[in-house]
Amino acid sequence: MHNPQLNAHGELTHLLSIDGLPRDVLVHILDTASSFLEVSDRDVKKVPLLRGKSVFNLFFENSTRTRTTFEIAAKRLSADVINLDVARSSTAKGETLLDTVDNLVSMHADMFVVRHASSGAPYLIADHLRRTGRDDVHVVNAGDGRHAHPTQGLLDMYTIRHFKKDFSGLKVAIVGDILHSRVARSDIQALGALGAAEVRAVGPRTLLPTDIEQMGARVFYDLREGVRDCDVVIMLRLQNERMNGALLPSAKEYFRSYGLTPEVLALARPDAIVMHPGPMNRGVEIDSEVADGPQAVILSQVTFGIAVRMAVMSILAGN
Amino acid sequence: MHNPQLNAHGELTHLLSIDGLPRDVLVHILDTASSFLEVSDRDVKKVPLLRGKSVFNLFFENSTRTRTTFEIAAKRLSADVINLDVARSSTAKGETLLDTVDNLVSMHADMFVVRHASSGAPYLIADHLRRTGRDDVHVVNAGDGRHAHPTQGLLDMYTIRHFKKDFSGLKVAIVGDILHSRVARSDIQALGALGAAEVRAVGPRTLLPTDIEQMGARVFYDLREGVRDCDVVIMLRLQNERMNGALLPSAKEYFRSYGLTPEVLALARPDAIVMHPGPMNRGVEIDSEVADGPQAVILSQVTFGIAVRMAVMSILAGN
Amino acid sequence: MHNPQLNAHGELTHLLSIDGLPRDVLVHILDTASSFLEVSDRDVKKVPLLRGKSVFNLFFENSTRTRTTFEIAAKRLSADVINLDVARSSTAKGETLLDTVDNLVSMHADMFVVRHASSGAPYLIADHLRRTGRDDVHVVNAGDGRHAHPTQGLLDMYTIRHFKKDFSGLKVAIVGDILHSRVARSDIQALGALGAAEVRAVGPRTLLPTDIEQMGARVFYDLREGVRDCDVVIMLRLQNERMNGALLPSAKEYFRSYGLTPEVLALARPDAIVMHPGPMNRGVEIDSEVADGPQAVILSQVTFGIAVRMAVMSILAGN
Repeated sequence: MHNPQLNAHGELTHLLSIDGLPRDVLVHILDTASSFLEVSDRDVKKVPLLRGKSVFNLFFENSTRTRTTFEIAAKRLSADVINLDVARSSTAKGETLLDTVDNLVSMHADMFVVRHASSGAPYLIADHLRRTGRDDVHVVNAGDGRHAHPTQGLLDMYTIRHFKKDFSGLKVAIVGDILHSRVARSDIQALGALGAAEVRAVGPRTLLPTDIEQMGARVFYDLREGVRDCDVVIMLRLQNERMNGALLPSAKEYFRSYGLTPEVLALARPDAIVMHPGPMNRGVEIDSEVADGPQAVILSQVTFGIAVRMAVMSILAGN
Repeated sequence: MHNPQLNAHGELTHLLSIDGLPRDVLVHILDTASSFLEVSDRDVKKVPLLRGKSVFNLFFENSTRTRTTFEIAAKRLSADVINLDVARSSTAKGETLLDTVDNLVSMHADMFVVRHASSGAPYLIADHLRRTGRDDVHVVNAGDGRHAHPTQGLLDMYTIRHFKKDFSGLKVAIVGDILHSRVARSDIQALGALGAAEVRAVGPRTLLPTDIEQMGARVFYDLREGVRDCDVVIMLRLQNERMNGALLPSAKEYFRSYGLTPEVLALARPDAIVMHPGPMNRGVEIDSEVADGPQAVILSQVTFGIAVRMAVMSILAGN
Repeated sequence: MHNPQLNAHGELTHLLSIDGLPRDVLVHILDTASSFLEVSDRDVKKVPLLRGKSVFNLFFENSTRTRTTFEIAAKRLSADVINLDVARSSTAKGETLLDTVDNLVSMHADMFVVRHASSGAPYLIADHLRRTGRDDVHVVNAGDGRHAHPTQGLLDMYTIRHFKKDFSGLKVAIVGDILHSRVARSDIQALGALGAAEVRAVGPRTLLPTDIEQMGARVFYDLREGVRDCDVVIMLRLQNERMNGALLPSAKEYFRSYGLTPEVLALARPDAIVMHPGPMNRGVEIDSEVADGPQAVILSQVTFGIAVRMAVMSILAGN
């Protein structure tokens, strides 16, 4: 079957999902990110790799944090960045998504960073570009519905590789609202591709997808069991809207059962690292003592995230 | 009478309206745009003509699409672009339009791109700059009320010249809501100045201005008659707010009478081109088969639009 | 006591308030601003001092005008500027202020320009940076609650020095809603540090803070008495929300008692200058004849404001 992310030479032309990416492409992105990490530490944090390129942030769903990370990454590559507040623009005036895309392509867009509430929207755009013969325009999925958030998955892999050196033998627990998390899905796929020994999905029955075992994860309904002997604990954000809904009794109750406290973390391996995609709900899914403690690598994830996004953009642009 | 768009040497100092622009100024803009078209095709899509200049997008009326085209044009000229969300700023705090302008001039603004719901607002600003002796600050009208949208008019002329080579002998039909369209007004003026043989205004009686014949256009209430033997068909967007109002029965009804279908288009010359300022309402003013068909040059208009805006900004800045 | 704005070598590391800044630091900022004033007059209005640096505009309270001045200043220093619309971002999702800051620091932010409705928010951030060992990241207070607006205070001092050469012997009247004004507080502190002979606080009893005399200002409830023989008259903006509240009878009534008219201004010294932080309410706190008259230096304040902000950013970045 045709992989819409790769061109005829097997090179990355869009980043839509970690699902289906060959292991060597993943490793190439992580290796490239290493070289960009150094750029952000320089006095002049800029390289001219995307000079004169036009990168469009096409956010159909508002996410200041994610948009900011891509904006910084693109600017450090010297691209021209144009933020489109799509909620207020032509789509609201009845224009179709693909008409909007065609218009921006006609303005000589080089790359679209797309965030959309509907799963598959970035695929639709990539497919349209292929059918209209615009292989020189690239799409990065910055989160589509519950489906995928591949740069978050990649930065998580970068973080794990940085601290654990090797994936083989690793036990990784992903804890929380896996059902609504595009991050969890991207992480499980990447960990599988990179050869982690065991991926655990830990959470209440109401927040675990029914197909989670088919995805290759071992299910735990008990946090202590799920975390025990793990090398990596990835905590997921509990969306505010879940907290008092039908799925969960209350935020307080959730913390009692699934909040990561120092006591629970002590069950993991002594050198286990704690990750979180942010923004954190302190006292809901994670205790402040853990979030600010020596095992947390949450802020390193943010730093690596910029380098990973620079790597993805730079690879797509053909550098 | 003094032409507020030209300086003492007859050079363009503001672009406020196509009305009153000498033919050679129009042609000079189109010729300059030709040279910029090539820049957008380069690998590094940037020229340093406006480096260090400050361009302010002063949008008193929201229009993401138009703002984006000016932002891209200015960035490709290497200007610093500052977007002012004026609806939320000091004018809302009771400051007058001209106090806002004086403030930005004092910050060493070089150019204002102005969009305003009131006809004449860009004239007011240009006049104020002249009276305060700031001939080094330039105004581009990006749409004022129902009055004018000169860069859209210019890109339409560029498109026609590109595909038809010469204006003499051309029959051009402008179809739809001419009453509320600043584009139609700019197009009629430009076509007159550039010597088109015949300009037709086609639409229902309720959407044609009463002075349309004085403007030099021939009136057609019937779409088929209006389109017959034309070289160029310019379809106008039907604003959503008109569709179910007093002026029109319904969108469906409108499409039946004034929507451009392949059957209707067949009445025009076989090599006729179809234009639309966007965003399109597919199935309201235009059939998808026409919009995506071989005679449509709608996306070329978008590409030429960037080049035309680069040309205007560059000429105003004295390059 | 430790001064949070200065580093161990007594150099400016954050600009939080004029309160506590040594006279020589103030003078150094003003002198540096002089050199930047020339940059804004150049054809290419850019210097590479902050090239590759990332400046974040962190506006928890909306202020398009103030944000614009910092954005222009940073861009003329060649910095990458990222505007965060914080009201719509992660803080709204329950993230703490300091978690937001930690995240941006992890993205290698170099400078935060902070506007916040709460007095002390920029101090909280500066203190957090110190405690986490990030002395290389700098904070500029762009207005916190009723507390301080130091760059406005500095540009006011620059303006006075520019027109009056020397502070000694100067009588300065600050007129209007001093109670709610962060500008007034910053001005009084700066005038004290720079050695003005007399600072007068002029306004109705309901709009003067009770501790105003301890701050070193002489109180006048009568405008004519307050303005008499002054060298400088600083008019404050009357916030719309005060006009019909419990504090004031009406805007018209306010103008009758505290509006600066040519007649009142005639009581000041013949060479007195009139200042206003903008945006002005013409006909409320100031008569148009004064605002546009020969003694007004209100637009010079705006010009100097860019130079002062460039100076502050450049000094903080260690240039």
